Amino acid sequence: MEASYNRIAGQSLHRLAGLSDGLFAVAMTLLVLDLRVPALASVHGERDLWQALVALAPRLVMYLMSFATLGIFWAGQQTQLNHLARGDRDLAWIHLGFLFVVSLMPFSTMLIAEFLAYRTALLLYWGNILLLGAILYAGWKHAVRAGLVKPDAPADLACAVERRILVAQGLYAMGAALCVFDTRLSIGMIILVQANYVLAPRILRLDRL
Amino acid sequence: MEASYNRIAGQSLHRLAGLSDGLFAVAMTLLVLDLRVPALASVHGERDLWQALVALAPRLVMYLMSFATLGIFWAGQQTQLNHLARGDRDLAWIHLGFLFVVSLMPFSTMLIAEFLAYRTALLLYWGNILLLGAILYAGWKHAVRAGLVKPDAPADLACAVERRILVAQGLYAMGAALCVFDTRLSIGMIILVQANYVLAPRILRLDRL
Amino acid sequence: MEASYNRIAGQSLHRLAGLSDGLFAVAMTLLVLDLRVPALASVHGERDLWQALVALAPRLVMYLMSFATLGIFWAGQQTQLNHLARGDRDLAWIHLGFLFVVSLMPFSTMLIAEFLAYRTALLLYWGNILLLGAILYAGWKHAVRAGLVKPDAPADLACAVERRILVAQGLYAMGAALCVFDTRLSIGMIILVQANYVLAPRILRLDRL
Amino acid sequence: MEASYNRIAGQSLHRLAGLSDGLFAVAMTLLVLDLRVPALASVHGERDLWQALVALAPRLVMYLMSFATLGIFWAGQQTQLNHLARGDRDLAWIHLGFLFVVSLMPFSTMLIAEFLAYRTALLLYWGNILLLGAILYAGWKHAVRAGLVKPDAPADLACAVERRILVAQGLYAMGAALCVFDTRLSIGMIILVQANYVLAPRILRLDRL
Repeated sequence: MEASYNRIAGQSLHRLAGLSDGLFAVAMTLLVLDLRVPALASVHGERDLWQALVALAPRLVMYLMSFATLGIFWAGQQTQLNHLARGDRDLAWIHLGFLFVVSLMPFSTMLIAEFLAYRTALLLYWGNILLLGAILYAGWKHAVRAGLVKPDAPADLACAVERRILVAQGLYAMGAALCVFDTRLSIGMIILVQANYVLAPRILRLDRL
Repeated sequence: MEASYNRIAGQSLHRLAGLSDGLFAVAMTLLVLDLRVPALASVHGERDLWQALVALAPRLVMYLMSFATLGIFWAGQQTQLNHLARGDRDLAWIHLGFLFVVSLMPFSTMLIAEFLAYRTALLLYWGNILLLGAILYAGWKHAVRAGLVKPDAPADLACAVERRILVAQGLYAMGAALCVFDTRLSIGMIILVQANYVLAPRILRLDRL
Repeated sequence: MEASYNRIAGQSLHRLAGLSDGLFAVAMTLLVLDLRVPALASVHGERDLWQALVALAPRLVMYLMSFATLGIFWAGQQTQLNHLARGDRDLAWIHLGFLFVVSLMPFSTMLIAEFLAYRTALLLYWGNILLLGAILYAGWKHAVRAGLVKPDAPADLACAVERRILVAQGLYAMGAALCVFDTRLSIGMIILVQANYVLAPRILRLDRL
Repeated sequence: MEASYNRIAGQSLHRLAGLSDGLFAVAMTLLVLDLRVPALASVHGERDLWQALVALAPRLVMYLMSFATLGIFWAGQQTQLNHLARGDRDLAWIHLGFLFVVSLMPFSTMLIAEFLAYRTALLLYWGNILLLGAILYAGWKHAVRAGLVKPDAPADLACAVERRILVAQGLYAMGAALCVFDTRLSIGMIILVQANYVLAPRILRLDRL
């Protein structure tokens, strides 16, 4: 009986969770490096400092938006992994791909914060979100197919997870499409979608669709 | 029976702890990037180097103060999470909000280190501390209301946690108010409050109030 | 009976895994800092931005390649550690050496991304990969010799692990050797080797050799 | 019965280990940011690149030395924590102080790498190592006094841990003292001490003293 290396490799869900938590933590804090303290020489009074800080506000909003995005996908990945009984090497690599796209988020965010009115920047940002959703979807499909899901998971779990990703991505895509009119409309819509998933208001409950 | 996505999402306290440890670790070390090594060209002898390092001292004090703040809130969050039996998605999002504010701490610190005499910088720094306390308070209130606390927790735990946050925030607010006279008075007071919580001297025991 | 310090030191596989996950997470995200957002002043329209982003593509490919390399070695280290029953101080230090070489990867990557056509840069990059493999090999040899492997590990596990490292390093060395002709040939070959280990296609299964 | 906040705060050794692993991981990788890739414009051939890389060698040695120092103290802290049955808030704060000093290590390292011949830089670097040892010693003393050590720990464990720290710090102090003659002598001695603790050769076994 041969121990194929691939059968024994990368099975630890614990290590995958550890790497993910570390990478999300770094990606979430790297974003703040983009908030630069105003130069001392350019500030001559409280009012100057206040204005310099107000000028940082759009950047802070973009940072908050990306932190929320990363939070949403961190929670989404966690929900999947929590329901798995074990991992395999393919799952590990799907999630490494997911983490690669997570690590690009600070770049996409800095890009859109700098080029707020450019469709190229917006579509790249949206592409980043789309990829996150697509890989998470693929990871879940693989887990179901490979029998990695815990046997005691709720019967309709698989559907709930898939529906959640598809509905969310549909809403993000609609937001991105609004850039035909104005990129700021797109950003507004994306922020609304995120607020819905973060706050999960009792009225809308889009996650139940 | 439908598996509402929100009921199954973000329940892992372990992952929340992992993300928090990672994010605190990065935030705590990012601060040190602000301590810049003196330029080789500007140093012509031991005395020059010594003076250049002495000039860094105020920055080091601010860094130590912020490290202490982060340590206090890391310990505070940990104390809460240790007493929870389980999490839910709302708790996860409250703590993600908490971590977002944690990630802003390096920025607030660099700002106040650069603009020591500016009330705007001081009030923003205090606002950062206030938000940390407020979110931690909200997180605890939610945990109690949602029945997430371990059944074997001490009877007066809830009061002890809330009192602790309120007394600490009262002291920080008093410190911030001192900026009416001088921002350095505020910083001195905040450092004293932190020293009290870090050292917990047997005489003062403000945490018992 | 004396408690030799070395007998009690560094035995926690859990802490070693925690440090490794953290360090890999940072190394994997540091790479993205090298992707710089184009300067606002140099961009006068969507086309400019698009061209500036296309110019970043080679850098993104190098980043993806290094992320894959780090992923491969993260999975490799994990597979080893998962099969150990306990650690000892020598194992801890072998893996600290491994992590040191991991932490050099962002530097090697930035070097080769900047000096794509230079053999010096390519050989250094390859040297980095070679060292990672060599230390992982040494770590495994030590674990087997010191009896750290779990008693219920598959009989041919030791061979599978060693063969895997040797075959992979052989292929990387062949890739590096191609730089006699052109460094781009080397990079292409290294990317193919990595794609093989990441995707593990059913046709090639080099890991079974 | 009152639940004094300090009695319930910061007791999780698991969270302390998580924060420590994260912070060590960041500190260990921040150091590499100081290795800057040579500027493309200043390199006109393989020989130029090679010379630029050779010029980085002293910096790489300092980096390796600091990585080793951090590794030694990571292993030292781990050895202590592994033998504790539980934590308390004072232990948490002693270790937070330890982590603060760890976070200063990248600064001390960059300083000494830039000012190799300056006693001020060397004494600061040594002061950093001294503080690490002193806090670890204090942490151990506190753990013994507060009864946090596991009841099944070897009888002479306490002595072994203390002796280890004192002997190591004695050797580091001797190294630092050599700067009366030449700072490079000091660095050489410190490297030898570290090599001894990392490699633990069977001949010297200073850790058994």
